[in-house]
Amino acid sequence: MTIDFRSDNTHGCSPGIVEALSRAAGGTVSSYGGDEITSRLRRKCRELFDTDLEIFPLATGTGANSLAIAAMTPPWGGVFCHEDAHIHRDEMGAPEFYTNGAKLFPVAGADGKLSAKARPQWIDAIAREGRTALPSCLSLTQATEAGTVYSLAEMQALGEVARTRKVGLHVDGARFANAVVSTGASAADLTWRAGVDVLIFGATKNGAMAAELMVVFRKDLVPELTTRIHRAGQRLSKMRFVSAQFEAYLADDLWLNNARQANGVATRLATALAALPGVELLRPVEANIVFARFPAHALAALRDRGFLFYDWSLFGEGAVRLVTGFSSTDADADALVGAVREIV
Amino acid sequence: MTIDFRSDNTHGCSPGIVEALSRAAGGTVSSYGGDEITSRLRRKCRELFDTDLEIFPLATGTGANSLAIAAMTPPWGGVFCHEDAHIHRDEMGAPEFYTNGAKLFPVAGADGKLSAKARPQWIDAIAREGRTALPSCLSLTQATEAGTVYSLAEMQALGEVARTRKVGLHVDGARFANAVVSTGASAADLTWRAGVDVLIFGATKNGAMAAELMVVFRKDLVPELTTRIHRAGQRLSKMRFVSAQFEAYLADDLWLNNARQANGVATRLATALAALPGVELLRPVEANIVFARFPAHALAALRDRGFLFYDWSLFGEGAVRLVTGFSSTDADADALVGAVREIV
Amino acid sequence: MTIDFRSDNTHGCSPGIVEALSRAAGGTVSSYGGDEITSRLRRKCRELFDTDLEIFPLATGTGANSLAIAAMTPPWGGVFCHEDAHIHRDEMGAPEFYTNGAKLFPVAGADGKLSAKARPQWIDAIAREGRTALPSCLSLTQATEAGTVYSLAEMQALGEVARTRKVGLHVDGARFANAVVSTGASAADLTWRAGVDVLIFGATKNGAMAAELMVVFRKDLVPELTTRIHRAGQRLSKMRFVSAQFEAYLADDLWLNNARQANGVATRLATALAALPGVELLRPVEANIVFARFPAHALAALRDRGFLFYDWSLFGEGAVRLVTGFSSTDADADALVGAVREIV
Amino acid sequence: MTIDFRSDNTHGCSPGIVEALSRAAGGTVSSYGGDEITSRLRRKCRELFDTDLEIFPLATGTGANSLAIAAMTPPWGGVFCHEDAHIHRDEMGAPEFYTNGAKLFPVAGADGKLSAKARPQWIDAIAREGRTALPSCLSLTQATEAGTVYSLAEMQALGEVARTRKVGLHVDGARFANAVVSTGASAADLTWRAGVDVLIFGATKNGAMAAELMVVFRKDLVPELTTRIHRAGQRLSKMRFVSAQFEAYLADDLWLNNARQANGVATRLATALAALPGVELLRPVEANIVFARFPAHALAALRDRGFLFYDWSLFGEGAVRLVTGFSSTDADADALVGAVREIV
Repeated sequence: MTIDFRSDNTHGCSPGIVEALSRAAGGTVSSYGGDEITSRLRRKCRELFDTDLEIFPLATGTGANSLAIAAMTPPWGGVFCHEDAHIHRDEMGAPEFYTNGAKLFPVAGADGKLSAKARPQWIDAIAREGRTALPSCLSLTQATEAGTVYSLAEMQALGEVARTRKVGLHVDGARFANAVVSTGASAADLTWRAGVDVLIFGATKNGAMAAELMVVFRKDLVPELTTRIHRAGQRLSKMRFVSAQFEAYLADDLWLNNARQANGVATRLATALAALPGVELLRPVEANIVFARFPAHALAALRDRGFLFYDWSLFGEGAVRLVTGFSSTDADADALVGAVREIV
Repeated sequence: MTIDFRSDNTHGCSPGIVEALSRAAGGTVSSYGGDEITSRLRRKCRELFDTDLEIFPLATGTGANSLAIAAMTPPWGGVFCHEDAHIHRDEMGAPEFYTNGAKLFPVAGADGKLSAKARPQWIDAIAREGRTALPSCLSLTQATEAGTVYSLAEMQALGEVARTRKVGLHVDGARFANAVVSTGASAADLTWRAGVDVLIFGATKNGAMAAELMVVFRKDLVPELTTRIHRAGQRLSKMRFVSAQFEAYLADDLWLNNARQANGVATRLATALAALPGVELLRPVEANIVFARFPAHALAALRDRGFLFYDWSLFGEGAVRLVTGFSSTDADADALVGAVREIV
Repeated sequence: MTIDFRSDNTHGCSPGIVEALSRAAGGTVSSYGGDEITSRLRRKCRELFDTDLEIFPLATGTGANSLAIAAMTPPWGGVFCHEDAHIHRDEMGAPEFYTNGAKLFPVAGADGKLSAKARPQWIDAIAREGRTALPSCLSLTQATEAGTVYSLAEMQALGEVARTRKVGLHVDGARFANAVVSTGASAADLTWRAGVDVLIFGATKNGAMAAELMVVFRKDLVPELTTRIHRAGQRLSKMRFVSAQFEAYLADDLWLNNARQANGVATRLATALAALPGVELLRPVEANIVFARFPAHALAALRDRGFLFYDWSLFGEGAVRLVTGFSSTDADADALVGAVREIV
Repeated sequence: MTIDFRSDNTHGCSPGIVEALSRAAGGTVSSYGGDEITSRLRRKCRELFDTDLEIFPLATGTGANSLAIAAMTPPWGGVFCHEDAHIHRDEMGAPEFYTNGAKLFPVAGADGKLSAKARPQWIDAIAREGRTALPSCLSLTQATEAGTVYSLAEMQALGEVARTRKVGLHVDGARFANAVVSTGASAADLTWRAGVDVLIFGATKNGAMAAELMVVFRKDLVPELTTRIHRAGQRLSKMRFVSAQFEAYLADDLWLNNARQANGVATRLATALAALPGVELLRPVEANIVFARFPAHALAALRDRGFLFYDWSLFGEGAVRLVTGFSSTDADADALVGAVREIV
């Protein structure tokens, strides 16, 4: 038997979402988003975010993030993101592909977050230079790859940076639900009210099969995004089946409940690990990811007992990343803590 | 009440596929294709096609087609396809995007098909010129956008063209099942044995939710395709959910049965329509699409009665395209024929 | 001894241009166009074209044409040009490269020219379809690759097509001087007054070393063109040396005199050849190119006598292209005519 | 009267090069490099570099550098260069354009140089990660943007890095002559013998009008480079006029003499400035560039007296860059030193 802390994308699909797909399976409907489920989802999102907006249901987060960035960034544009941002480190240059060759500027920042406290020299220097790239887009991950969360105040400060520098503001929200639960702020406050232009609202990592919603707050971007999604081959003909996943995700607070579960298990795990001698927490735990350092000999021993997780060489020897998902349980956390206690 | 002949992508999802998704929903598994369902699917495909091969489960046909073409075509390459090919006419330049600017050469040909009977002047002239583009890829649609099917002999002849001209051979198989049923040939004979390098084997139009399988017969293309799919943001993290759809699709001949149903209704419809005065069939009906001309006044009248279909202006006034799907019935066909008879 | 009819780019450099380069060689001046020669050239062009405009001195025509098209064409745009247009047939996809993958639509038309007489179905069909590409740019070659010239009325009619279809109008003017001489129309009338947005005004083929002037009549395109030229590595640091060539080219009507010479020799040649039995002129001769068919045995015999020219397989056996340049002479023409007479 | 230290590209053209252009101006010759001057230049380069190689005469350094990098870097590749490298900081993303979206990894290093002493963590980390980019090319500038020079030993060490990491090695040699003079090493030792695959051998900054020679030591790159240059619109039709500049550049050691002059004036300037109180040299002076800090009030005063130079904000207040060229004189240096002495 194994207990899996590798990633939230190793988890399956929430029953409510499976049922929604089953209900949506019959009959013929308009393709490419002309169906009633997609219409209902659009209305639901306008309520949730308390504003006019457009949605594009898509199948992958990387595709969605890259398309959103491309709509705000010319080929000679510059995209500013944290140096650990998924779009920069993990996608073989997907934003560069979609933008036709824009430059990503990876920026250092504590706890996986860009800081807006200091003057953003990282963007102003490029603007002043004038020959490196045209500053065009600021891309944030919420919750971050480091398992931290931008607070409402931090989002507002970075929104102000984007506004005053006249660059777009994109949020990679693969774990947006985890951030909403963690901050307690509203979806609207964390996004357009803080200046976000496009949010990629992920459901896949939090209980859907494959459902990422591009939420566009700047309506002027809609025509170009429509064309770009088409040209990228990311329009889903039977769009109802992504919309149905997302509708179920938003119904009855499934998205928040799933995230609350994942965050809760992560917090429980972190709290207990922090109390163990020989274990070091490497970053604040604000969402569903725990970075910890175990004694080096513990890693193989834990794996022998069936625990699955990744080494995280960024932090040196013994460092691991532990990710919880919607189907993680307190018992999973307790089992790992118990095993660590025994081994260490 | 409506009867829908707009497209096969307006149809829903086969019960067997819904059930497979439901079964796959639980537990944690390796993401990005490291799961057991994907492994089983790979084995199943090797059996079905009777050869070693690699598979990439993907969410959209256009993305898959474009990636396959890009792996065989440098930016300065030329792609040869029928002038009605979906990749050329309907996707806002998706292959141009994925290839970083290759040229598509649309070629005329009867019944939506490229002919290999004549010497392929369309490719040899470009090769001779030497300054327009480097001939790199031949792309066929099987079944075609015209509702016709390349026979086994035709596939072999075009495979020979590709082989002797040293260009890749790609098949857009959005309706590959319909072609297999129509020709009675084996999946292997219609593909790699005829010289096909990459088949995009569609399930979406024939009863899946969103499942397109890139089937790669040329193993040397696999590393680059792996990278391209990654960079394009088309890797599905929870790949099991596409693989599960496809596994169910291939189980118990569901793919063939669904296609047989769609083809059968189309043939029934075509036969009956052809017998009606004032109705003209515009193309041979070999798969699940019927092109017909009705008296001009009939179109609105049919729509008033709840029949859904698209005008097809390519053929002038009164021309329509009627597409059947896996959930179309003989009764649907008979209802349309009856209505036409009354109106005309 | 040889007499060269291969191309106008085999000819050398006009003495006046060499002298101008020599005069410009001393001293230090601002680079990248901040020099006085470039300023004078800008003023001169505003006079010549009788309007406000911006200029970009560049080194190659293909680069310049592609940049101009790219500034008017998004990656999903469509560019309409004659099927014999250099940008389509001869440049390995340069416009596709610069536009990041736009589609070129090659259009048939008599004598190497697009016709505006008929309704331009070639553009309207794509606009109506809506899923192939966004019609964005019309590209004309003046004088054409066929050695013909768009009359003022033809330019105006095509300008009207561009205006009413809301697409940009680009002119590849590698042989613009030959067209001005041929039509007798003014540079202004043949360009912006007819609706041209950007002219690539070539000097290289007509007596310069390497000097192509991008003349931009739509000032709103200037910022993006500035960036695109920079990013493409086509900004010349010592721009004075292109500007000096062009200044000399425009001084004392050198451009017109050189073109008049080339056109005159071509006309003389065509007239005399047409009178010979066994020789067929294949196209109207309106600039500096003659397409003719000789008896098949004549080609090798002419080459034995030192005449240089290219076969033109487009027109079948015995067809040749004869191009004159600024340094061609009446004696060159007479020598060829005499040789043909003897051989035939 | 002004004395110009802005850049070496504000200087004019060496008389010997003007004369060569004048000699080359007459008669017709094969275009696109089929001429005798280009053939002679190829032979001359094979002698100079003491090896088989291919050359492509081009008009701009940025275009040439980007093309060379693109031939060694797939769209998903990574290019490693110094963080001050011209290709990264100053060209609006030219390499990203030519590579179709590769990533540049700017690397810190003292005196504008990459260090090969330490293990190149900057490349190995990306290789290990495996999901950021495929390490593909190492790009060095010789002499550097900092006015320093890679010694022969440094070149060899970095060549070893490239060889063992299996990445291409490109040299931006806009000031290659200055480096050869400075190091005293042979052109061959500094390039292919150290592992360089492609050198962009600049003449423009050192006395030509517009002449950059792509020198390709890896013959397997030649076909792709031929196509890329064509598609990029960088083939010069009258190539003889670039070849003639370069032939004169290499004749009678003009390239070395010009560089020796520029380097000599820079050294004279640096030595004298270093002796002045209140003046700080900011970097070693090994070629033709001096970075210095003057008292802040001195800058305007020097400009009032006619000295032209750029502020260099990278080094903070009072910092300037002083560049000498082939036509700079000892008197220029002395005049500036004298003025600084008076002002400070």
